Amino acid sequence: MQSATTNRQFRLAARPVGIPKRSDWELTSETVPEPRDGEVLVELLYLSLDPAMRGWMNEGRSYVPPVKIGEVMRALGAGRVVAGRHPGFSVGDEVTGTLGVQEYACADGRELTKVDASKVPLTAYLGALGMTGLTAYFGLLDVGAARAGETVAVSGAAGAVGMIAGQIAKIGGCRVIGIAGGAEKCRYVVEELKFDAAIDYKSANVTAALREHAPHGIDVYFDNVGGEILDAALANLARHARVVICGAISQYNSTTGMRGPSNYMSLLVTRSRMQGFLVFDYAERYGEAVRTLAGWMAEGRLVSREDVVSGFATFPEALLKLFRGDNTGKLVLQVHDA
Amino acid sequence: MQSATTNRQFRLAARPVGIPKRSDWELTSETVPEPRDGEVLVELLYLSLDPAMRGWMNEGRSYVPPVKIGEVMRALGAGRVVAGRHPGFSVGDEVTGTLGVQEYACADGRELTKVDASKVPLTAYLGALGMTGLTAYFGLLDVGAARAGETVAVSGAAGAVGMIAGQIAKIGGCRVIGIAGGAEKCRYVVEELKFDAAIDYKSANVTAALREHAPHGIDVYFDNVGGEILDAALANLARHARVVICGAISQYNSTTGMRGPSNYMSLLVTRSRMQGFLVFDYAERYGEAVRTLAGWMAEGRLVSREDVVSGFATFPEALLKLFRGDNTGKLVLQVHDA
Repeated sequence: MQSATTNRQFRLAARPVGIPKRSDWELTSETVPEPRDGEVLVELLYLSLDPAMRGWMNEGRSYVPPVKIGEVMRALGAGRVVAGRHPGFSVGDEVTGTLGVQEYACADGRELTKVDASKVPLTAYLGALGMTGLTAYFGLLDVGAARAGETVAVSGAAGAVGMIAGQIAKIGGCRVIGIAGGAEKCRYVVEELKFDAAIDYKSANVTAALREHAPHGIDVYFDNVGGEILDAALANLARHARVVICGAISQYNSTTGMRGPSNYMSLLVTRSRMQGFLVFDYAERYGEAVRTLAGWMAEGRLVSREDVVSGFATFPEALLKLFRGDNTGKLVLQVHDA
Repeated sequence: MQSATTNRQFRLAARPVGIPKRSDWELTSETVPEPRDGEVLVELLYLSLDPAMRGWMNEGRSYVPPVKIGEVMRALGAGRVVAGRHPGFSVGDEVTGTLGVQEYACADGRELTKVDASKVPLTAYLGALGMTGLTAYFGLLDVGAARAGETVAVSGAAGAVGMIAGQIAKIGGCRVIGIAGGAEKCRYVVEELKFDAAIDYKSANVTAALREHAPHGIDVYFDNVGGEILDAALANLARHARVVICGAISQYNSTTGMRGPSNYMSLLVTRSRMQGFLVFDYAERYGEAVRTLAGWMAEGRLVSREDVVSGFATFPEALLKLFRGDNTGKLVLQVHDA
């Protein structure tokens, strides 16, 4: 079996300008590495495709160092331990971690989280029970400080984080307005996820639609997209609102620089704050959050939806689905062809 | 005496496009009004000229209703009670309030604050001991939550609010970097106000200069100007920084729309917040703040500087000094020619 001896990897070949092209990647092969003492060998089953990956491809100061040219692309993933020299892990254990865009990864135990995929699919640990869910949880509840009775608006509402953020807001007793692209996504968030309303930014005037759906203003705006939609939300803030800056996917491939929110002085008029965060800062509370999220899933109150594409060699094209808004739910690449 | 019978007033004649023109104003005269029961007649001595006045001239939703066409322009002012039918005020009392751009105003007692100009000049009650000082105080200490040992950057550092905000930060044990336009203003804030450093935005690359003066980043950025300088500050935030949105004077006369801060995603990278505020929300704490500010002034630790121009008929031109950055300190219009 070829996959048992060969490890295919996607390495960054060039720093993209705008949308990443095939030529920005190099697909290489190496012999599957041998785990050293304290390491295990993980066979990757699913790769998490995240908007943040676009930022990691750029040069310059950010919250993590950029991926170097020639390096295996950074990615979260889920897989199975296939060989081990670590007392905490056995062959067959299912794990998640920052494992890279490759078929096999050696990792030491500190980098891995053991997960139980007996009751939920393994992919949920890249969705509602993974960094995606944790990002939504801490962003909405801690940074956004959403409280029962408040009006919450979420952009990228049919995307990985937005979908969870909106559901958590509903569980918490908020009125939730989702903003998403296209009628089908809007139908999904209202009918399946039970958001109170959805705005299709591709067909509606978002500023006017928010005014209609939130006549008293938005108390918490959870932003995944930036650009015009952020400005539309800023134009509709309630007093003492919280704008949670989780991402700005509309801007990541811009070749003319980021667009800043020209309505930011609404923060003054409404005495509001706009705050950024990184889920990593909440590492000490991951356990609490995952237990809570898993409890809601078990009770049927929280849906984790993964949009699974396959297989490994299509990684460059699969990643672009995020920027076209083609995915509904957490975009996951199945490493082995289905 | 003409001034005893005639009240000249500047009324808004048209909503300005860009820089307010003479023709946006109408200078009218009426008979000095008679105070009714519960009112006093105030002779205006000084008018406060504030960047916020530009916003009040625009149509549209804001934190106060726009000044209507034909209405006397809204302005803070300081003056003397010359006739009274209010038990709390005597002829000769010195007062401040939102008295309008006029020579005389009738006001009821709730709109007036009695002040003691025996130890500090009356104009200081439009500066460090007025809304200017209160804005700096609550903005820096409450919204910005500046703490001893932190690095604070202030734009409009030689302007009314910036000057006080920087001095309060120094009193609180912060390292303070001022950003101002021109060598003389920079000299003033360093030599006279004892800021640690000043950056002349007219000659320096502000982003690079902030990096040099704040190599570990800015903990609190107190913004009065918006535009490119806000972006320069965002590019230099420390982790968990607070950006205080007090004003955006560089943008108020824009005819092409506000420029949003294109570096706002720095809020995410540095886990920082950007927050707007209005001093009016702190009304219950004005007393505490004025006592503190007056105490610092009495101890010689806080300087109030007013840039006084005269007289009443030059109001339209005097106001524009703010937008050209011609003033150092609080711009005040002396109503009667000196």
